Amino acid sequence: MTDSVDDSTATSRRRFLRKGAVIGGAAIASGIVGNASAIDSSSKNLPPNVPEWMKVPGDPMGSQLYGTPSPFEKNVVKNIPKDLPQYLSASGRTPLQDLDGIITPNGLFYERHHAGVPAIDPAQHRLMLHGLVERPLIFTVDDIRRFPSTSQIHFLECSANPGYKKPYGKTASDLVGLLSCAEWTGVSMKLVLQEAGLRPEAKWVIAEGADAAALTRSIPIEKCFEDALIVYSQNGERLRPQQGYPLRLILPGFEGNMNVKWLRRLHVTAEPAYSREETSKYTDLMPDGTAREFSFYMEAKSIILRPSGGQRLDTKGFCEITGIAWSGRGKISRVDISVDNGKNWQEARLQEPILTRALTRFRLPWRWNGEPTVIQSRAIDETGYVQPTLAELIAVRGEAFYYHNNAIWPWRISADGEVSNAADD
Amino acid sequence: MTDSVDDSTATSRRRFLRKGAVIGGAAIASGIVGNASAIDSSSKNLPPNVPEWMKVPGDPMGSQLYGTPSPFEKNVVKNIPKDLPQYLSASGRTPLQDLDGIITPNGLFYERHHAGVPAIDPAQHRLMLHGLVERPLIFTVDDIRRFPSTSQIHFLECSANPGYKKPYGKTASDLVGLLSCAEWTGVSMKLVLQEAGLRPEAKWVIAEGADAAALTRSIPIEKCFEDALIVYSQNGERLRPQQGYPLRLILPGFEGNMNVKWLRRLHVTAEPAYSREETSKYTDLMPDGTAREFSFYMEAKSIILRPSGGQRLDTKGFCEITGIAWSGRGKISRVDISVDNGKNWQEARLQEPILTRALTRFRLPWRWNGEPTVIQSRAIDETGYVQPTLAELIAVRGEAFYYHNNAIWPWRISADGEVSNAADD
Repeated sequence: MTDSVDDSTATSRRRFLRKGAVIGGAAIASGIVGNASAIDSSSKNLPPNVPEWMKVPGDPMGSQLYGTPSPFEKNVVKNIPKDLPQYLSASGRTPLQDLDGIITPNGLFYERHHAGVPAIDPAQHRLMLHGLVERPLIFTVDDIRRFPSTSQIHFLECSANPGYKKPYGKTASDLVGLLSCAEWTGVSMKLVLQEAGLRPEAKWVIAEGADAAALTRSIPIEKCFEDALIVYSQNGERLRPQQGYPLRLILPGFEGNMNVKWLRRLHVTAEPAYSREETSKYTDLMPDGTAREFSFYMEAKSIILRPSGGQRLDTKGFCEITGIAWSGRGKISRVDISVDNGKNWQEARLQEPILTRALTRFRLPWRWNGEPTVIQSRAIDETGYVQPTLAELIAVRGEAFYYHNNAIWPWRISADGEVSNAADD
Repeated sequence: MTDSVDDSTATSRRRFLRKGAVIGGAAIASGIVGNASAIDSSSKNLPPNVPEWMKVPGDPMGSQLYGTPSPFEKNVVKNIPKDLPQYLSASGRTPLQDLDGIITPNGLFYERHHAGVPAIDPAQHRLMLHGLVERPLIFTVDDIRRFPSTSQIHFLECSANPGYKKPYGKTASDLVGLLSCAEWTGVSMKLVLQEAGLRPEAKWVIAEGADAAALTRSIPIEKCFEDALIVYSQNGERLRPQQGYPLRLILPGFEGNMNVKWLRRLHVTAEPAYSREETSKYTDLMPDGTAREFSFYMEAKSIILRPSGGQRLDTKGFCEITGIAWSGRGKISRVDISVDNGKNWQEARLQEPILTRALTRFRLPWRWNGEPTVIQSRAIDETGYVQPTLAELIAVRGEAFYYHNNAIWPWRISADGEVSNAADD
């Protein structure tokens, strides 16, 4: 049923690639040596033939001072749900199932904003730090850049990814596309707070964004001192406007909306703000009728990206299963995969580097026997937490919750190779 | 003279940021509380005032399905030397001094091509593997994607970065901008060769690109089995056309041109091809009149990016020195920095993760006393190799070489804070 291909076994590898056409015998006579009547589309661009694009010089340098993807990849773009009213409160999802590795390119990084994307002149932007501090301070972007800097690779995820609400969607992007990962560069929030000097009663920092929503979230002082960053760069270059240009917070492992974009104010207080985004929104209704507030951490989660919903296995045989796992609590320690609807599980290989609060890529060699099945992954993080099934999650959280749905997402593979979302069945 | 700020010393940190304006006393009266006559440009966008971009909804979602940088970053683009004849043999450099971290965003990844950038339809592209193999094979791009995959972060560097030829240029990008780093995803070349089965006499693999130059390089079979990759993705998304779309080689640590782009042929042979790019070009003329050929490895190297040529220190006091180091031989084990024209050296802090054959970011807290000086960095890799001065390099290589110039690059800081290339003096 499953056939794990050992990484060091050359013989089994020789079998798994079925589609590589063998050159030799009739193939040489009909394809490579130029028998026009027998040349098919798979051979006309092979040596000694020369494809059209080798017969003329290519695009000159300078046509793109800032590069863009190939026109043949024009469908790999942000995924905007058609049933969501867009504009004032909007989102665009990363097309995870089309991507590889752990770094999300900036052009495809997910976006979520509550009043559109402000166009901020960095020379005019200011960050105010005040409240329970010894010396209130005003910073320009250049002031922030003068601090000692640090670079960290971390994921960012919306807390409604997906919300607990059917239908969840067809593709991995529909399900968990409000998730991306980048290398962030900025300054430790601890350093900036120390610059102002905290008063003993300081327990929270209220962060405010410079968008028309003035998005406001309360951050426990412990997080500000642990690993919070005030960030200006993402994957090397300055933040994109959609990601908070020119300054944003990164609170590694905390729900996306707390990583306040277009950061303009840090107000140090003794109590949280109880802002709209931590009362009316981003709280979790529990079975006993209370609402869980300040549920900061994104718990361990994983999803298989290939094969995944909307894709199709066009042949039996070897098929690598690959996907991503992540945890707001730290590093991923293990990912298990089941290819028989949850009956048996086997451990996937984790790709180095395995970084804290970052995406971790996993892979498992698999051989599909052509029969219908359900495949799924579950993540375990370094705290020992195991990603739950949706049923297990509902048993604890009830039916009324919306945010922080980190359930296992199963994919159904039909006999004709079509892959669909088994959680929407 | 220098004052290393210990990471754990809050008191020294309180001193280094001179430009953060203190709110309080006269500042509160004149700026924050709205004394119109005293409000300067640094306060009008601070709470309780509201900047213009918070008064209207921002850009809606959907205006950019593939994101681009802020218009305020329009000058952060590839650096095209104006004195180089462009088109058939062209290059565009990464603006390293404007970037942070170790990942180069795809839009700014350096490019170097010998006959322009071909526009390749991936559905029409084929890769042929033939020569000293048991079973010659033809692969489509999808065939290559069906192999077990791997993702690795590696730098890529042109072997003439810079060529040994004055003037070297003004900025870090002018000097070593033919250098970038990305997370590559593809298949181990070893697996693909094993799929075809190598004959015992196989010693080299001749790689050919599908550009109008049909760029051709010979790769020792040992490298193909060590860590060579056939790559289709870069920083998550498919390769950009300038970086070899749809398939390219990545030979970690080997000079850039060997990482053949637009890969269409792997010809397994007993002898190297002695192609144009490994005879007329990319060989090193030595003092005894012979030419060193097949100088694959990019040796250990580093450069300070901030402060660097073309930048200006606008004030005395705290200034973080930061830059990048890399080695084709493995991991960077140490970077030393001198801030007194090479008299004394101190160890910089290396940013995790430190990956093999990848850029490593280094940082050193420094306090500029306002006097003219020369700053420089030197990299040491895990083999113990120490980056040489230009004089040391010339002593071994003579004056006739051009490629593989990995000398230390010193920056001169004048009394008015201007930073310039001390190697061009």
